[in-house]
Amino acid sequence: MSVHEECGVFGLYSEKPVNASGIAYYGLYALQHRGQESCGIVVNDDGLFTAYKDLGLIGEVFTEPVLSAFPEGTMAVAHTRYGTTGATSRSNCQPIVVNHQKGRMALAHNGNLSNATKLRSELELSGAIFHTSSDTETIAYIITRERLKTNSIEEAVSRAMYTLDGAYSIVLMSPQKLICARDPYGFRPLCYGVTGDGMYVVASESCAIMAVGAEFVRDIEPGEILIFGKNGIESRREHCGRRKKHFCVFEYIYFARPDSVIDGVSVHNARVRAGEILARIHPADADIVIGVPDSGLDAAIGYSRGSGIPYEIGLIKNKYIGRTFISPDHRLDRVKIKLSAVKEAVDGKRVVLIDDSIVRGTTCGRIVRLLREAGAKEIHMRVSAPPFKFPCYYGTDIDSQENLIACRHTVAETASLIGVDSLGYLPLENLCELAPGRKLCSACFSGEYPTEIPEDTRKDRFCQRLSEIGE
Amino acid sequence: MSVHEECGVFGLYSEKPVNASGIAYYGLYALQHRGQESCGIVVNDDGLFTAYKDLGLIGEVFTEPVLSAFPEGTMAVAHTRYGTTGATSRSNCQPIVVNHQKGRMALAHNGNLSNATKLRSELELSGAIFHTSSDTETIAYIITRERLKTNSIEEAVSRAMYTLDGAYSIVLMSPQKLICARDPYGFRPLCYGVTGDGMYVVASESCAIMAVGAEFVRDIEPGEILIFGKNGIESRREHCGRRKKHFCVFEYIYFARPDSVIDGVSVHNARVRAGEILARIHPADADIVIGVPDSGLDAAIGYSRGSGIPYEIGLIKNKYIGRTFISPDHRLDRVKIKLSAVKEAVDGKRVVLIDDSIVRGTTCGRIVRLLREAGAKEIHMRVSAPPFKFPCYYGTDIDSQENLIACRHTVAETASLIGVDSLGYLPLENLCELAPGRKLCSACFSGEYPTEIPEDTRKDRFCQRLSEIGE
Amino acid sequence: MSVHEECGVFGLYSEKPVNASGIAYYGLYALQHRGQESCGIVVNDDGLFTAYKDLGLIGEVFTEPVLSAFPEGTMAVAHTRYGTTGATSRSNCQPIVVNHQKGRMALAHNGNLSNATKLRSELELSGAIFHTSSDTETIAYIITRERLKTNSIEEAVSRAMYTLDGAYSIVLMSPQKLICARDPYGFRPLCYGVTGDGMYVVASESCAIMAVGAEFVRDIEPGEILIFGKNGIESRREHCGRRKKHFCVFEYIYFARPDSVIDGVSVHNARVRAGEILARIHPADADIVIGVPDSGLDAAIGYSRGSGIPYEIGLIKNKYIGRTFISPDHRLDRVKIKLSAVKEAVDGKRVVLIDDSIVRGTTCGRIVRLLREAGAKEIHMRVSAPPFKFPCYYGTDIDSQENLIACRHTVAETASLIGVDSLGYLPLENLCELAPGRKLCSACFSGEYPTEIPEDTRKDRFCQRLSEIGE
Amino acid sequence: MSVHEECGVFGLYSEKPVNASGIAYYGLYALQHRGQESCGIVVNDDGLFTAYKDLGLIGEVFTEPVLSAFPEGTMAVAHTRYGTTGATSRSNCQPIVVNHQKGRMALAHNGNLSNATKLRSELELSGAIFHTSSDTETIAYIITRERLKTNSIEEAVSRAMYTLDGAYSIVLMSPQKLICARDPYGFRPLCYGVTGDGMYVVASESCAIMAVGAEFVRDIEPGEILIFGKNGIESRREHCGRRKKHFCVFEYIYFARPDSVIDGVSVHNARVRAGEILARIHPADADIVIGVPDSGLDAAIGYSRGSGIPYEIGLIKNKYIGRTFISPDHRLDRVKIKLSAVKEAVDGKRVVLIDDSIVRGTTCGRIVRLLREAGAKEIHMRVSAPPFKFPCYYGTDIDSQENLIACRHTVAETASLIGVDSLGYLPLENLCELAPGRKLCSACFSGEYPTEIPEDTRKDRFCQRLSEIGE
Repeated sequence: MSVHEECGVFGLYSEKPVNASGIAYYGLYALQHRGQESCGIVVNDDGLFTAYKDLGLIGEVFTEPVLSAFPEGTMAVAHTRYGTTGATSRSNCQPIVVNHQKGRMALAHNGNLSNATKLRSELELSGAIFHTSSDTETIAYIITRERLKTNSIEEAVSRAMYTLDGAYSIVLMSPQKLICARDPYGFRPLCYGVTGDGMYVVASESCAIMAVGAEFVRDIEPGEILIFGKNGIESRREHCGRRKKHFCVFEYIYFARPDSVIDGVSVHNARVRAGEILARIHPADADIVIGVPDSGLDAAIGYSRGSGIPYEIGLIKNKYIGRTFISPDHRLDRVKIKLSAVKEAVDGKRVVLIDDSIVRGTTCGRIVRLLREAGAKEIHMRVSAPPFKFPCYYGTDIDSQENLIACRHTVAETASLIGVDSLGYLPLENLCELAPGRKLCSACFSGEYPTEIPEDTRKDRFCQRLSEIGE
Repeated sequence: MSVHEECGVFGLYSEKPVNASGIAYYGLYALQHRGQESCGIVVNDDGLFTAYKDLGLIGEVFTEPVLSAFPEGTMAVAHTRYGTTGATSRSNCQPIVVNHQKGRMALAHNGNLSNATKLRSELELSGAIFHTSSDTETIAYIITRERLKTNSIEEAVSRAMYTLDGAYSIVLMSPQKLICARDPYGFRPLCYGVTGDGMYVVASESCAIMAVGAEFVRDIEPGEILIFGKNGIESRREHCGRRKKHFCVFEYIYFARPDSVIDGVSVHNARVRAGEILARIHPADADIVIGVPDSGLDAAIGYSRGSGIPYEIGLIKNKYIGRTFISPDHRLDRVKIKLSAVKEAVDGKRVVLIDDSIVRGTTCGRIVRLLREAGAKEIHMRVSAPPFKFPCYYGTDIDSQENLIACRHTVAETASLIGVDSLGYLPLENLCELAPGRKLCSACFSGEYPTEIPEDTRKDRFCQRLSEIGE
Repeated sequence: MSVHEECGVFGLYSEKPVNASGIAYYGLYALQHRGQESCGIVVNDDGLFTAYKDLGLIGEVFTEPVLSAFPEGTMAVAHTRYGTTGATSRSNCQPIVVNHQKGRMALAHNGNLSNATKLRSELELSGAIFHTSSDTETIAYIITRERLKTNSIEEAVSRAMYTLDGAYSIVLMSPQKLICARDPYGFRPLCYGVTGDGMYVVASESCAIMAVGAEFVRDIEPGEILIFGKNGIESRREHCGRRKKHFCVFEYIYFARPDSVIDGVSVHNARVRAGEILARIHPADADIVIGVPDSGLDAAIGYSRGSGIPYEIGLIKNKYIGRTFISPDHRLDRVKIKLSAVKEAVDGKRVVLIDDSIVRGTTCGRIVRLLREAGAKEIHMRVSAPPFKFPCYYGTDIDSQENLIACRHTVAETASLIGVDSLGYLPLENLCELAPGRKLCSACFSGEYPTEIPEDTRKDRFCQRLSEIGE
Repeated sequence: MSVHEECGVFGLYSEKPVNASGIAYYGLYALQHRGQESCGIVVNDDGLFTAYKDLGLIGEVFTEPVLSAFPEGTMAVAHTRYGTTGATSRSNCQPIVVNHQKGRMALAHNGNLSNATKLRSELELSGAIFHTSSDTETIAYIITRERLKTNSIEEAVSRAMYTLDGAYSIVLMSPQKLICARDPYGFRPLCYGVTGDGMYVVASESCAIMAVGAEFVRDIEPGEILIFGKNGIESRREHCGRRKKHFCVFEYIYFARPDSVIDGVSVHNARVRAGEILARIHPADADIVIGVPDSGLDAAIGYSRGSGIPYEIGLIKNKYIGRTFISPDHRLDRVKIKLSAVKEAVDGKRVVLIDDSIVRGTTCGRIVRLLREAGAKEIHMRVSAPPFKFPCYYGTDIDSQENLIACRHTVAETASLIGVDSLGYLPLENLCELAPGRKLCSACFSGEYPTEIPEDTRKDRFCQRLSEIGE
């Protein structure tokens, strides 16, 4: 509902006080690709919560003075957020910290509830007030209400999970415990690791586990609740198996970092496999294979391997283009600053061009033009995913259907529109080969949703939205 | 309880869309003396709320790009806050905007509930979660709960006022209406005005009414609820007279701006009268009268008039010292940068020195030393208020009792400690002359509280506090 | 020539290393009124110069991390600048640090050379290149060229002073010495003091001497060069008496801080005397005397004393209005935010209104309207200076003649334009009473210039100007 | 001497006014890899120069308001600078703008004069003062002195070139003309292009020509002066052939962007060739070839091609690590945040690891450890350049010799220190194959300097350096 978001969560638990904010900072840096809009860290120093969050990248928000103002602590929860709407809002920054009758709680969340509208409405009817438009506040309410009836925070989380529906990977901190939970479908990733001196680390992706010098232990299972506390680790599994597993295939294709391993499958390998499948199903008579940096590179390697056509570096990405880049001269082509073709590599060549998706087709068309100007004789585009056709209700933000080129044009039309000599997508039926033996959610390609999608979720029920500027 | 605060509130209602954020900006500038920690503006553009708030002065928070991002609107609520605890928190910034079952509400508040602890506890027991430690969120909850049972926001406000106890001057905005309310004691000021073209303006002080070019109409009465909406102004008076009026005398003595008129009494005149009383009761054989800028100047004029001793400018305040001033060399005296004596004015003179209060006595002692160094022969200090001895539970932050010089020393001892030749306070029994015929709260001087003060309010019940850095 | 500027200079010399940047910071704060555009500090740590300067107020430029990055040192030179042209430029910030054949030099300057155009032209003809448009760089060149021919920096300064014409108060630091010099006319102030532990302090005004805890010793005499070094203080007086003294009277009237003493005359007293003269020469039948804050207050006291009419606080200045104040709503009157009338003080009263000058008359007219709206029955304006009629070539920036109300209208017309019942200026012939026995420059009022003004100085010889943005 | 620097220069000339600052902004973005410390743009609007420069990246310095404050213009000069010393200084930012007897000049420079000390000393002896420690100011002086004796700026540039020795690629703007010049050795690159509507563009690298939508025309020849003005383009060639060409080979190996073409040679191709040579000369029995991103990737492709061993993505660079990255927890390995190994790609594999250089060996050793932890069975490091052994006096900053691992250890020792199974450098004698037929400077590898290096240049003659904080 309301705001769709792709995010990264991070948590740590240690017996002895550690530089919790510093470690969380490193962890967030490794998860920055999962969200660049805002970020936050909450440190727990023996029950005292110190929080800081703001709009901006990790390096912008967590400056030296901000980090050094944090105390040491035995626990931390951290979050990096990708807000998918134009109305970015400071009040939607995570983790959220709330006070309730039995104490205090910090909560970071990645995912999207499919029954958020209904839950929020019920809460409001009983007098709840909402400061944010995010699902995280709804989850906090549900857990708090259960907490009043039970003796432990983990019991409250478990009870809440019968109410929550959709995608959620949660890291939650009470004064005494760090708790993480993954929805019974397992839409979004969540894993944990441990360091040599006994600190536990929870993160959306294994790359963040490694970044802080910990060893990867395993994924949290769909439906599992893991409690880190004075008595060590406890696993509660009453929600495991309640639902069929449906891990988001787009994490493999695009979201996750190639060096992460999710559900036992290397993201890099999944992408290489996608390239190999494309080489098999959509061969091309060409001289070189090039990938659109950075997300098309792994699949390009796969295509090169599968086809025997040499891999080349045909496009260079300007690594200095960031959030601050503006367009002071509109007659100049922004794409030319962001990407440039290596003329000597593509001139006179028949090129296989690999990217992970085509959304509207505009950027894609410009890249094709860049390569043509650099002398590419033929361009055979291969896309390492099926065409996008359906909205996602589990946390992936996809453009509205009227903008999706695949909803409005055939493959042949699309090829002609973006100016390529041939175009091939990864077939829907081959998707499963990316992570062999795993059950994946591919609703955005197939339209088959693993959960019920309430009618009212399908459109935004708010006629007038609260927007917050600069926020 | 929780955070004591002195604040300024501002609101506007217009039939036609106006540059609501721009007008609120001017209004806040006129109320900046009531709070320098944070500020915020929420504009209502036909039900769409646009909010921006942050830590900092008006001019720091509301820069050109921030202001120009606001749409026009027919209503606005704005706030400037003085946080009295070290732990300044961005999450405590006002106005707060909340969504509830029947819509949305923006709320700005000046004051302090005396039954906040009890109310918050009851709310938490029923499942409420709190994002902030401020009373404003408690008030929002109480009003929301009443709103669910009634048909109008003004009825909800009225019902809530039976529950709320203590000091509150509220400006509240629903999608359709601007509502302001003052507690039945009338502890804190609130007034309204109107412009030539029919825009209504509500503010903590009349100086903000004038600043935006409106004409002052009158004070909101203690207990009164004023509703600005499609049907014009409506006044609800069911709470008027429920309590005896107790307007805070310290608003006259220190808080309010001298050009404001509160409850029909000019703040400037009240201070001049304080000086005249001091001249009558504590005469001095002296050559000149000087005031400590800026708050002692009006009373110094009064003392000069009452005594016939010439008024002089004996102390100059450095007008560039602001929040950014730091102390890079601790061997140097900060007070010497902030204030300096005009040697030629005081050299060889017997000086009457007027200030509005003595808290710890430290600053006061340094000012006396400055004057001695400049050659003052005698210094007769006169204070335009009685000695501070008791905590305030209605929104005035007073130092803890063990730090108050008047709690630990007699007047004679104090005089000796700060180094003056004589010292005279305004007697408690003469306080009423400042605003003749008005009923004032002088609990901080007398210890007589007009409301019941629950036992648990007297100390902070939180052992571990949520602190937020940089915030 | 080029950029006219009013500035503040500061320097210190100590045998032992001290927190030189911290002391300079305090000194600059006390001189902030002399220039709010840019500021800078250069510290000399045994020959190593550490410099920092930027556009902005002291508190904006010298933040905690900037100050703490300075080393300790035995000398410092500091500057605060008032740029009078719209094109504020970072490259014109002072002090300037230059390297030359015999070492290095940091230079801060207050004043304006009257032969700058000629000097700069000669230097350019010999191959000099200029990075800035300020006179300071010209002075640095002249001193450097002399330095090549002599054995000491003080000898170079002395020789340079035969070439420089106009107003200059210089503080200069070589690796070994701190040198200060004042032009033979003594247009701009410069004085020094000493602390208990033997640190010497030089500053534009005595208030800065006091602010850093030093004791005022005396003014640098017109034409005097003072050298602080290993051998103690040395005074060179070969330029003393070369010219007739002409201290700028506008320093007394407006520039200097009231607690400063210049040339043995208290600025506060000079202003009080101006008020007394006005009371004598332009009496008024009135009820109260009020001053326009802050610069009109001292003269208002004088008028009150001279006339016997009671002094009142009739106008309040909003102390939060600073450089960040913008005008988001142009229908609202900016002056109403900056100044407000105390209605209760002026209502129904005949008011004497004192200000230090009338430039264009616009602001003045608005203040008069404010007082009328507050009920003032009559307004008798008295100005504590003669009418502005002529340009200043010695460092005071005055509006162009076509904008000066006194150049285009008689006193009667001016009174009518600004809406007052009567108007009286301080007569030119009484100016000398402000600083009895001192020889003052009053060229801006009289048109009698103590130096020759070259024809080409009278207009800007640059057709195309170098402007630097944000700078 | 003084500050060594690698930089990027950019200039444009158009008959009609264009959005010169906007185009320069795009150009600088394409040159950002040549310098990240500071940047600046000067626009010439019919003789009026508007300049802005500061420390920081393009996107940090040139924000929307800064860019929109520039006027349109017919010319611009821009610069991005890599300061190699810790003492980064705002005063050393380029372009520099100077005023001289015959007008005004903006100058941007890439390179390093080998006779700078001598030239500066001579200038100082004749009375010159220096604001900066950069060669650019020296060049400006030399040109200015010649300008006084001649009738045109291009003649002055030509005469100055007889005096200047070492590496310089200059873009210079007078009120009427844009002039660019390259030293007779041609150490640093400089080329130009033209747009469809007749705007000329000059830049350090061809990638910036393409980025602004222009077509590449050709390199400026060593010794050539190119003048863009009212009469079109003029080429002066009196310095061409004065010296033997010596283009910096390290531009191909590391500095330049792979999509640039310099002297007719594609940088990408040069690197691929380096990889191929390594495969030929230092073969390895391995399973995969991986490059250290980003600068080792092209050579890795070459090695893969030459050897037939498959190219893999074995290391991922965190693209969010920028200048703001700090190390809040020193027990954690920074390299692990910046780079991570793709475990699935390297586990159990024999790896050829390609990088462009080994300086101290520290980072290299950490990368090797990362790969070992990820399971790499063998690591065969290949470096696409010879070992660094000698200082560069032409603008490349190389660590001091005592830190260079190649100066202190044999290849075998180095291999053991960084922990690889074998190590092979590109042999010095094969360097020429990178750019076949071109004459290259390889002094940093061979110690054979094409120019005389004065004794005094070899060490810093300043005992005490001017440092500027925050600058």
